[in-house]
Amino acid sequence: MYLEKINSPSDIKNYSLDEMKELAKEMRTALLKKLSVHGGHCGPNFGMVEATIALHYVFNSPVDKFVFDVSHQTYPHKMLTGRAYGFLDENRYDDITGYSCPEESEHDFFTVGHTSTSVSLACGLAKARDLKGGKENIIAIIGDGSLSGGEALEGLDVAAELDSNFIIVVNDNDMSIAENHGGMYKNLKLLRDTDGKAECNFFKSMGLDYVFVKDGNDLTSLINAFESVKDTDKPVVVHMVTQKGKGFALAEKNKEDWHWCMPFDIKTGKPKFNFDGEDYSSVTRDYLLDKMKMDKNVIAITSATPAVFGFDEETRKLAGKQFVDVGIAEETAVALASGIAAGGGKPVYPVYSTFLQRTFDQLSQDLCINNNAATLVVFAASVYGMNDVTHLGIYDIPMMSNIPNLVYLSPTTKEEYLAMLDWSVDQNEHPVAIRIPCCEFISNSEKITKDFGKLNKYEIKQQGSDVAFIGLGTFYPLAERAAKLYEQKTGVKATVINPYYITGVDDELLNSLKSNHKTVVTLEDGILDGGFGEKIASFYGDSDVKVLNFGLKKEFLDRYNPADILKENHLTEEQIVDDVLALN
Amino acid sequence: MYLEKINSPSDIKNYSLDEMKELAKEMRTALLKKLSVHGGHCGPNFGMVEATIALHYVFNSPVDKFVFDVSHQTYPHKMLTGRAYGFLDENRYDDITGYSCPEESEHDFFTVGHTSTSVSLACGLAKARDLKGGKENIIAIIGDGSLSGGEALEGLDVAAELDSNFIIVVNDNDMSIAENHGGMYKNLKLLRDTDGKAECNFFKSMGLDYVFVKDGNDLTSLINAFESVKDTDKPVVVHMVTQKGKGFALAEKNKEDWHWCMPFDIKTGKPKFNFDGEDYSSVTRDYLLDKMKMDKNVIAITSATPAVFGFDEETRKLAGKQFVDVGIAEETAVALASGIAAGGGKPVYPVYSTFLQRTFDQLSQDLCINNNAATLVVFAASVYGMNDVTHLGIYDIPMMSNIPNLVYLSPTTKEEYLAMLDWSVDQNEHPVAIRIPCCEFISNSEKITKDFGKLNKYEIKQQGSDVAFIGLGTFYPLAERAAKLYEQKTGVKATVINPYYITGVDDELLNSLKSNHKTVVTLEDGILDGGFGEKIASFYGDSDVKVLNFGLKKEFLDRYNPADILKENHLTEEQIVDDVLALN
Repeated sequence: MYLEKINSPSDIKNYSLDEMKELAKEMRTALLKKLSVHGGHCGPNFGMVEATIALHYVFNSPVDKFVFDVSHQTYPHKMLTGRAYGFLDENRYDDITGYSCPEESEHDFFTVGHTSTSVSLACGLAKARDLKGGKENIIAIIGDGSLSGGEALEGLDVAAELDSNFIIVVNDNDMSIAENHGGMYKNLKLLRDTDGKAECNFFKSMGLDYVFVKDGNDLTSLINAFESVKDTDKPVVVHMVTQKGKGFALAEKNKEDWHWCMPFDIKTGKPKFNFDGEDYSSVTRDYLLDKMKMDKNVIAITSATPAVFGFDEETRKLAGKQFVDVGIAEETAVALASGIAAGGGKPVYPVYSTFLQRTFDQLSQDLCINNNAATLVVFAASVYGMNDVTHLGIYDIPMMSNIPNLVYLSPTTKEEYLAMLDWSVDQNEHPVAIRIPCCEFISNSEKITKDFGKLNKYEIKQQGSDVAFIGLGTFYPLAERAAKLYEQKTGVKATVINPYYITGVDDELLNSLKSNHKTVVTLEDGILDGGFGEKIASFYGDSDVKVLNFGLKKEFLDRYNPADILKENHLTEEQIVDDVLALN
Repeated sequence: MYLEKINSPSDIKNYSLDEMKELAKEMRTALLKKLSVHGGHCGPNFGMVEATIALHYVFNSPVDKFVFDVSHQTYPHKMLTGRAYGFLDENRYDDITGYSCPEESEHDFFTVGHTSTSVSLACGLAKARDLKGGKENIIAIIGDGSLSGGEALEGLDVAAELDSNFIIVVNDNDMSIAENHGGMYKNLKLLRDTDGKAECNFFKSMGLDYVFVKDGNDLTSLINAFESVKDTDKPVVVHMVTQKGKGFALAEKNKEDWHWCMPFDIKTGKPKFNFDGEDYSSVTRDYLLDKMKMDKNVIAITSATPAVFGFDEETRKLAGKQFVDVGIAEETAVALASGIAAGGGKPVYPVYSTFLQRTFDQLSQDLCINNNAATLVVFAASVYGMNDVTHLGIYDIPMMSNIPNLVYLSPTTKEEYLAMLDWSVDQNEHPVAIRIPCCEFISNSEKITKDFGKLNKYEIKQQGSDVAFIGLGTFYPLAERAAKLYEQKTGVKATVINPYYITGVDDELLNSLKSNHKTVVTLEDGILDGGFGEKIASFYGDSDVKVLNFGLKKEFLDRYNPADILKENHLTEEQIVDDVLALN
C-alpha cells in the first residue's frame, strides 16, 4: 500500500514509474469505494489520477501553487496532500469537503465551487508573486467544459499578458457535464486529431504558448510535459487529453450519468437510493414537452445542466430545435433568453439559484431594462438546496428581487407553479422568474384561477386577527403550522397569507391588516438582508403594526444540516410563536 | 444636402458611391458639430460612418436586424434610421439617447449600454427567427475592445453553433477606451498585418467563418464584404479594420482622450468646461501613487477605465508593475484582486458602480467566500452619477451589501474616504468596498481617528432626542439639513448619525436610541428595496420606534434631472421633515 503512507506530496518525489502506477491503482480503488458509499463527482476525478500524480511529482506544492477550477477534479489532489484518510477511512469520508479548501490544507489556495474561475484567480497569485519578486510556479487547472464560461475566457486573455511564469493545464476529456457545446470545441477536436499540430489553435490565438499531451492518462508523457514547462518565464497552456471516468468501466461508457453520482452498488452501478416519483424536475420537463408540441415558439435553454429540469438525452432529442444548451455560459443564456423573447419566441431557462449569480448584469441590463418576457425557473433556491458553501441557494432573493421590472414569483405547490409557469410563458409583458419550492413536493389538485398578471396581489388563505403570518414559497407550510400553534396557545385564530410575489408589496392588503392586527410575521427561505421581510418591515415602519422578520442570517454556511440552521435562526413554529408571544 | 432628407435606410438604396461619400462627409460634419456642443462618444462614431452606410445599403433594416454592442458607435446608425434631426437640429439634440433604443426606432432592438452583449443578444434574435422559420439576416456589431468581456466571448462560442444565418461585424480600431489589453489582441494584430490570412485565427478557432476587410473606412470594400456574407446560412465574422476618430484630426491623433468628450471648441479641441480642482479621482490617484512608492505590494487594477481614478498614460507609467489594466473584463478584475490578496498583495480596484454589476458572482464566490482583503472603490454610485438608464449607480447597495463577509463603507468626506482607504489597503481581514460620495466634494480637514476594523460602529454626530436622522454617505449632509430644519420647526434638537457601514447594523447604538427617540429616519442614495434603510426598519420592527426610510423607488430611470427625482422621492429636507411631522 502506497496511498495510506502519503502525508504530503514530497512522499512521492522518489517513486519509480511502477510505484506511481501502483499508486494510481490504489487511488482509483479508494475513489470507487468512497463514491459508491458517499456519492460525489466521479468521472472528472477518475480521469485526473495520473495528471495529479505527475503534477505533484514535477512541481513543489505548496511553494508552487495549484489552483483547480470548480474543484470537481480535486479528489486525487486531496489524496496526495495529506488528506488520503478522507478517502480511505469510511468514518472520515465527511472530514474533507468536495471542493478545494484552504482551511483543510496549505496546498489549497481558494475555496472554489463555481466553474471557470481558476485562471483568473491563479493570475492573481502570479501577480502577487511578481510584485514580491518570487519565482515559484503558478499552475491553473481547468477542464474543457469550464473553458466556455466568460470568466475563464477573460482569464485566458488576461493571463497571456503576464510577463512571467504561468502554466494553464487544460484537462480535455471532451465533455462538460453533458456533451460540450460551443464553437471552440471544434478547435479542441482539431487539436486532438492533429496531435496539437493544427496551425489554427484557440490557445495560441489567445496569445498563449502551447504544449500538447496526447495521452493525459500516461504518466511518462505527463511528467515530460510538465518538466518541459516548469519554471517557464511566460504563460503556457498544457493541453492534455484525458479520459473521463478512466479506470471505472461504467463511467468510461456513460460519461454524462457518471459525472456526478449518488451512492451506488459497485457491481451493478445501480444507485442505492432510487427516486422515480414526481418532482419539480419531472413536472417542468413534462410541462415543457407538452407546451413545445402546441407552440413551436417555446424553447428551453440550459447552461450545461439539462438534468436540472429532467432533460436527458432522449428528451433533448424530442425537443429538437426547441432546446438549446449553451454550455457553461450563464451570461449568454440570459442574454439569449432576452433576445429570443425580443424576437417573439418564448424562452424558458431553468437554472440553479447559485449559478444565476453569474448573470446579475445580464438580468439587469440585457433582460430587465429591455423588459423582455423571458421565463427563468430557479431551482435549489432554499436552505434545503445544496449545502456546500459554494452552492448555496439562499441569496437569490436579495440579488434578484431588487432588480426593477423583474417579476419574481414564489409558488408553494405544484399547481401554483404550473399555473405561474403557463402564465409566464404565454404573457409578453414582463421578465419573470419562478422560485421552485424545496423540501416538500406539495400537490393538492387545487385549481388555480389567479391572474398572475395583476402584479403583487397577495392572498389571505386564512382570515384571522391579531397576528398575520406571511409565508413565502417553501416556508408557506411553516406559516400555516405557526398559525395553528398560535391558535392552540392563545385561542385566537391568526391570519395566514400566501404572498406569491417576492418582488412587490401588496399595499392594499397590508393596509387592510392594520385595523385588526398587532403583529405581522414574515417567513422567507433565504437570508433576511435585502430580502422580502425587510420590505414589509419598511412598509409598516410608520404604523403601530409590529413586524417580525424570520429568515436566515447573512452568512456563508457550509455543509450544514437544515434542521440545525432553521433552529439557529428561530425558524421552527415553536420558536416563531414564542417570539410573537414575547412581543406582548 | 443628403443627410437631412434621409428618413429611413431605404432612402440610400439608390445612392451612387459618390453620393454615399458625400453623405459620409455630411455625417461627420453633423457629428463634429453635435459633439462640440453636446459632448458624447466621439472616436468610435467617426470610425463607423462608412461601415454604417454600407450596412444599411446592403442589408434591409429593420427586416434584417442590427444589434450594436455598447452603443458607442450607433450615432451614424441613428442618422440613417429617421433620427438625423437629433444631429442636425441643435434644439433636438436631446430628443435621442446616446444608446440604441427600441422606443425611438423600429431599427433598434435592445436598449444597450454595457459592453460585450451584442453577440449573445443577437443570437437570441437568430434563434427566435429559426423557430419561426424566418430568413432575415441577423447582424451583431462589436468593437475589438468589447471582445475581451466574458459575455462577448461566451457569445462567439455559442454563436458558432447556430446552424443558420448569423453575421458578426467586428469593428477593429485597435483600441478599447484606452489601448487594448489581452492576449487576443496580438492575434487581431497578426490578422491585420497579414490581411486576415494568418492561419492562426481567433475567430476561426471559435468555429466561425471569417472575412477580412483591410480598410473599414472604404465604402467599396465594405459593400463587397457585406454583399458576400448577406443571406449566409451559417455564422460568419466580418473583421474590418477602421480608424478610430476617422475624419476628425484631433481624435485620429489622440484616440484615448477622444473616445468620449465633453463639449469642446471645434478649432482648438479644448473642452468648454474645465475642471482642474481636487475631486475623488485625483485624490484616489494621489493616494495610490504615494502608497505604491512606500509599499511595493500595493497594486491598482482597472478594467479598461483608468480615467475613473485619474490614471492617465503618464501615471500608468509611473506605477509600472503596480498597475494592471485587464481590459474590459470586470469578472477577471475581481478574481484577480482576490488572487492578489491571497498571495499577499494589496489590490485596489476602482470601478463604476454600474460595471460592478458584471461581477456579482466573482464578488460572492471568488472574493467574499474566500474572505480575501481586496479593496474596491465604487464610483458614480449615486443619483448624481451617470443618468442614462444603462449606467445608473443606484442599485449597488442591494447588490453588494447583502453579500456575506463584504464590508461596504460609505464615507461622507475626503478625509473619511482616505482614512477608510488607507485602513482597507493595509488590513488583511476583510474584502472591502468603499462607496465614493457624489454631488459635493467635502473636505473639512477633520482628523479621522476611527478604527474601521471595529465593524458596524455608527457615530452620533449630533446628540438630540425624539427624531434621529441617519444619513448614509452622499446623503449625510441632507440628514444634517433635515435635522436643522426640524429644530427650526419644532424647537427640538434631533439626533444626527453617520453610519459609515452599509453592510451592518449597529445594534447597540440603535437600541440606545429607543429610550428617547420616537422616530428614526434613514436616508440613502440608492433604491430603497434591499437597501440600508430596510435593515433599520426590520431592526425596529418589534419596537415602538417608528422608522421612515427615504431613498429611491425601485425603477429604471433614464436621462433625469436629479433634483426632480429627489423631489419625486420626498428627498428634500422640507419633504422629509413634513413626513416626520405628519407621523405625530
